[in-house]
Amino acid sequence: MPTIDILLPGFAIDTDQGYPAFCGVFLVRGPDAAGRPRTLLVDAAHVGRRPFLWDALAAHGLTADDIDTVVLTHAHWDHVQNIDLFPHATLVLHPDERRYAHTPHANDWATPSWTGLLLEQLPVREVSDGEEIIPGVSVIALPGHSPGSIGVVVETEAGRATITGDALHFAYVARTRRNPLVFWDSDAAARSIDRVLAVSDLIYPGHDRPFRLTANGGIDYLESFALTLTGLRPDTQGLAFADGSARPLWVMPGVEEQRALYAKNADDIERRISRVPRVVGPARQGAEPGSG
Amino acid sequence: MPTIDILLPGFAIDTDQGYPAFCGVFLVRGPDAAGRPRTLLVDAAHVGRRPFLWDALAAHGLTADDIDTVVLTHAHWDHVQNIDLFPHATLVLHPDERRYAHTPHANDWATPSWTGLLLEQLPVREVSDGEEIIPGVSVIALPGHSPGSIGVVVETEAGRATITGDALHFAYVARTRRNPLVFWDSDAAARSIDRVLAVSDLIYPGHDRPFRLTANGGIDYLESFALTLTGLRPDTQGLAFADGSARPLWVMPGVEEQRALYAKNADDIERRISRVPRVVGPARQGAEPGSG
Repeated sequence: MPTIDILLPGFAIDTDQGYPAFCGVFLVRGPDAAGRPRTLLVDAAHVGRRPFLWDALAAHGLTADDIDTVVLTHAHWDHVQNIDLFPHATLVLHPDERRYAHTPHANDWATPSWTGLLLEQLPVREVSDGEEIIPGVSVIALPGHSPGSIGVVVETEAGRATITGDALHFAYVARTRRNPLVFWDSDAAARSIDRVLAVSDLIYPGHDRPFRLTANGGIDYLESFALTLTGLRPDTQGLAFADGSARPLWVMPGVEEQRALYAKNADDIERRISRVPRVVGPARQGAEPGSG
Repeated sequence: MPTIDILLPGFAIDTDQGYPAFCGVFLVRGPDAAGRPRTLLVDAAHVGRRPFLWDALAAHGLTADDIDTVVLTHAHWDHVQNIDLFPHATLVLHPDERRYAHTPHANDWATPSWTGLLLEQLPVREVSDGEEIIPGVSVIALPGHSPGSIGVVVETEAGRATITGDALHFAYVARTRRNPLVFWDSDAAARSIDRVLAVSDLIYPGHDRPFRLTANGGIDYLESFALTLTGLRPDTQGLAFADGSARPLWVMPGVEEQRALYAKNADDIERRISRVPRVVGPARQGAEPGSG
């Protein structure tokens, strides 16, 4: 059966000066239909985690060249930015997300205007709900946070595990059943949460530790928390701490315009994709400098 | 005389799971040679600070459309990513930095391969050492951290202030005189620090609060520290704190290859620049969706 390893853990930490945005990055391994061993990543994190990603791969005896597939739960900045590290990988994502990323709404601060330029640096395979990636690893469409958010359902020895991306950022969302950060559609986001809860034995959220829901709806984390902060101390003057599970629900201003604008840009997407120059070349890790 | 305001403060905070990388973003205002009022940004921060940047502009009675110039101290991910927010701005940077950003070294984790695609989204004005941007605001070349790092020297009423970018990340570097994070040239980086210290009355570092050096080499901060962390508490199990000023000196593996590779790519830069599609259009703030 396929296996899931946490390459980089997700953290439910914010600040009032900026988002550290440490999303989970997951290693999924298993044989494909022809029996060949496959090494997949789910999500890639942002540039500020780049050296940590290299180290985590090395700790698993891997280099970036060993990754044959990068599944993108969605194209937000904190999940997508390191995809260029994997020149031997195919990028797997939902066509709605791909198309949206080329012309995001101006109020969508998590999807900069240049996201499409980054996305097209790898060969892309578009996938939809229910599609199998390798045996025991399939796509679940979880729109709402973004138009083409997807999760990855993995049939593991411990049960059916769903890697959710930001369809379910934090474990507490399994209790509140509302997505606190919506850029596309709140109701769709709530249905996506329900769907994850209905199908999953274990949940790997976007920005929290993996967990099971207990019989009475409690959260049973499968990993422990570990983080070292450098450059401040608990008693640092001016430093304050606030409770995380009290996050207000936020829906992007202008969200009602999203569907119409998105439909309007449909004809254009092939042209946009074809215009993107490739700057990622093969064999770029280690001493081998940039080419392309 | 021109004025400096801190739009977003810089923070000297790291973690063992990723870099929050909150660099300072500065508002510099003053009349140009023709007497017209000008509104400049120095650096733009990364996407995780995007909504905070909007709020900070609004707190100064500004919108992104009011920014006519964005000066980039260097093209690292945490300084460059929000430049596409400023469709009415000219991007000002050093030609060495512009060229490097299109073909960064594979070990340069702070400059992803796609940086050039982002950089060319605004009209670019290349500047060199000593060049005036507006009266009382000039460029100082500070290579070492990166090939084309620059600072901005501002003649303010409080004295000559230098906005240093990562030529001087943290106030303690004014004492150690060594850059702890070098991607290009350690010796050049040390000379750049010395130069900043020689010319400046006040220093606005890349990732710390502005300060003056006292007569006996002490650090006199001009602003106080303020930060709220959400999602953890001082007594959170698994949370640890470490001292910031004990950062080891790090020089990028492969740094000795940098100059030769960079020279090799000189002929190519015009072609690379011309291939970049523009995805940033005018009037993109607020309800106006993406075009281009």
